[in-house]
Amino acid sequence: MALIVQKYGGTSVGNIERIKNVANRVIRAKNEGHDVVVVLSAMAGETDRLIRLANEAAGEPDARELDVLLATGEQVSIALFCIAVKDMGYKARSLLSHQARIFTDQAYGRARISEIRTEPIWHSLYKGVVPVIAGFQGLDARGNITTLGRGGSDTTAVAVAAALAADVCEIYTDVAGVYTTDPNIYKKARKLQRISYDEMLEMASLGAKVLHIRSVEFAKKYDVPVHVRSSFVDEPGTMVVKEDKAMEEVLVSGVAYSKSDARITLAGLPDVPGIAARIFITIAEAGIVVDMIIQGSGYTTGKANLSFTVPRPDRQAAIRILEGLKKELPGMEISSDEEIAKVSIIGVGMRHHAGVAATMFQSLAKAGINIQMISTSEIKISCVIEDRCTAKAVQVLHDAFKLEEPLVHEIAGRD
Amino acid sequence: MALIVQKYGGTSVGNIERIKNVANRVIRAKNEGHDVVVVLSAMAGETDRLIRLANEAAGEPDARELDVLLATGEQVSIALFCIAVKDMGYKARSLLSHQARIFTDQAYGRARISEIRTEPIWHSLYKGVVPVIAGFQGLDARGNITTLGRGGSDTTAVAVAAALAADVCEIYTDVAGVYTTDPNIYKKARKLQRISYDEMLEMASLGAKVLHIRSVEFAKKYDVPVHVRSSFVDEPGTMVVKEDKAMEEVLVSGVAYSKSDARITLAGLPDVPGIAARIFITIAEAGIVVDMIIQGSGYTTGKANLSFTVPRPDRQAAIRILEGLKKELPGMEISSDEEIAKVSIIGVGMRHHAGVAATMFQSLAKAGINIQMISTSEIKISCVIEDRCTAKAVQVLHDAFKLEEPLVHEIAGRD
Repeated sequence: MALIVQKYGGTSVGNIERIKNVANRVIRAKNEGHDVVVVLSAMAGETDRLIRLANEAAGEPDARELDVLLATGEQVSIALFCIAVKDMGYKARSLLSHQARIFTDQAYGRARISEIRTEPIWHSLYKGVVPVIAGFQGLDARGNITTLGRGGSDTTAVAVAAALAADVCEIYTDVAGVYTTDPNIYKKARKLQRISYDEMLEMASLGAKVLHIRSVEFAKKYDVPVHVRSSFVDEPGTMVVKEDKAMEEVLVSGVAYSKSDARITLAGLPDVPGIAARIFITIAEAGIVVDMIIQGSGYTTGKANLSFTVPRPDRQAAIRILEGLKKELPGMEISSDEEIAKVSIIGVGMRHHAGVAATMFQSLAKAGINIQMISTSEIKISCVIEDRCTAKAVQVLHDAFKLEEPLVHEIAGRD
Repeated sequence: MALIVQKYGGTSVGNIERIKNVANRVIRAKNEGHDVVVVLSAMAGETDRLIRLANEAAGEPDARELDVLLATGEQVSIALFCIAVKDMGYKARSLLSHQARIFTDQAYGRARISEIRTEPIWHSLYKGVVPVIAGFQGLDARGNITTLGRGGSDTTAVAVAAALAADVCEIYTDVAGVYTTDPNIYKKARKLQRISYDEMLEMASLGAKVLHIRSVEFAKKYDVPVHVRSSFVDEPGTMVVKEDKAMEEVLVSGVAYSKSDARITLAGLPDVPGIAARIFITIAEAGIVVDMIIQGSGYTTGKANLSFTVPRPDRQAAIRILEGLKKELPGMEISSDEEIAKVSIIGVGMRHHAGVAATMFQSLAKAGINIQMISTSEIKISCVIEDRCTAKAVQVLHDAFKLEEPLVHEIAGRD
């Protein structure tokens, strides 16, 4: 008998039939003797519908009111779900933020959960009632409705699991788990049995869309085992857990890619101290996040050049800002390129093993793929390449690190 | 400068364009120097859509969860409305029940407002912000969401106006005001300038659908002047106000009709005391509300008969219950008729004037309309007639009491 938090995504509750399927799944877990707390997303398509309405009402919808609007999506889901469960003869009780007492900061649209007062949840469980919590939303200290950003229901679920010290947080989604890479790009992609929090964090921030990144941070901070699995099949998915010895044996656990960045290159910069700082402070002041940076000095010309990546939607704004610096930096030439992709390998084993980077670069070179930029952290290496080479690069790296074969710790079994 | 509560119904906020029109109307009132508090219904069709979803999920949707579901309708309206107002450069702030602090009893689906703590509304007004309140819903003492029943946003508006001691509560709807009778049935129907709370109560309970009946009770109890008017035109509608001397000069203010009842007739009853009590107690225990009753004694036969009306949807259930009494009441014959209508004349002047009933009966007789049952109160007379004679009866009565002509107190002007 365990205390389980189950979160179901928008596709899993996309229509009444699917809501009833989910109800059956929850009831089964209850009948197996578990205590279940349910967290739901809005029905698939509902959030988009509401955003369209808001955009009809205003070019830039007010952030506070947009959250009031979007929060209705999950409210509809939890009400319908409880109606279905009760119709099946079981007890369920919907809990909105002011009832489940989920508090956040006041950052509308991207709020962070600060506190969950679990009394109402425990009270329901004590009475044998399934508490059903609206994901994605909370209340700030003044009682305003806030939302956590796209995918935020994952974070609600993990935060609730952390607050209850639940045995596991099950994230039900439309994929079967976390894969070594995107199965749509490479059919040899393999579902991972286990992955560490840190690896999952890197995967999420480098392009894998399985889990909301904040939910993984929460899981890591409070050591909540997260089980990513499909609501459409019964087989186990992927456990996201604390790193252990066996995981360190593995050099690379996955290959991620992202096509959401643009590269900006500045040539003809004076090769004197402080130029890069001047440029990046100006860009940061506009709220634009720079990811990778390469600076090259032209020893013979006395001129330097600088390349960096920004999110694609910010490219035009970044260029406008840089044009404004031309008076200060005469001779600066600005060019940019959106046809780039970032391909990354992730693995906690990298920390203790040399040669991983070399293998990556060699493999890409052998496939004729040119590396434009490189960035590394303790457990990942990312390369910017030409957009059109993405699939090829993913496949080459997946093969090079033998990701189609079960990992050492998976053969050994869990723990 | 006045403090005005404005309530807009589902048709008035039926799409984004109309929401923007309403926003303009509110802004105009603000620019004229008034303080405005807005109460909104769900967008037209939204409540029906949600009910359909609930009925897909369960044959009899759980009452608590149905309220959680339906409450989203108004939440969407107020969020979109505030987004539109803010886009026009004005300040508005949506308030849900847990924010506006609208408390009710725990009767899901037909809750009654028990308390409104007005601090958040005053705080908004103090800061020059238009408070925009979700109609139709409240919280019970434990924080559960409740709804007030169809048309409940009217009641929210009047209750808010009462709590704020507002100068007027304007109910914007898709008709221009309260009419002497349904203009769809008689084109001579005339919009009333004023009507008393009691007359409006009778009109609402006898079939006129302009105002939620509970809202009129609230208005009467707290003496809130209610202005019923159209959101699509600018002309004044009808004031629902406290009765005054001038109103008593008028015999009849309106003709109402309703086709929502069925008549049940029991023949061959033993003519002994206690029979009627036995029958009506049994029916009342099943939660069926009996409206009009006629009992006739068969002086020659020693048998009595009994006719009464029940809501049409309850007819079958009532008959089943009566069949169950046949053992106790041998010889009882049960018949029923759904093809009936109730036509009523309403007017506070009846209290002090004789002959009104006679005029009604004579007019119907002259038109060849047979009266099956009669019931009266201080300020109304209702007759049950054949369904197919409804329009004719309404027209005849409208003519007989000269309702197409301005009423005495309307000629005299207000007060």
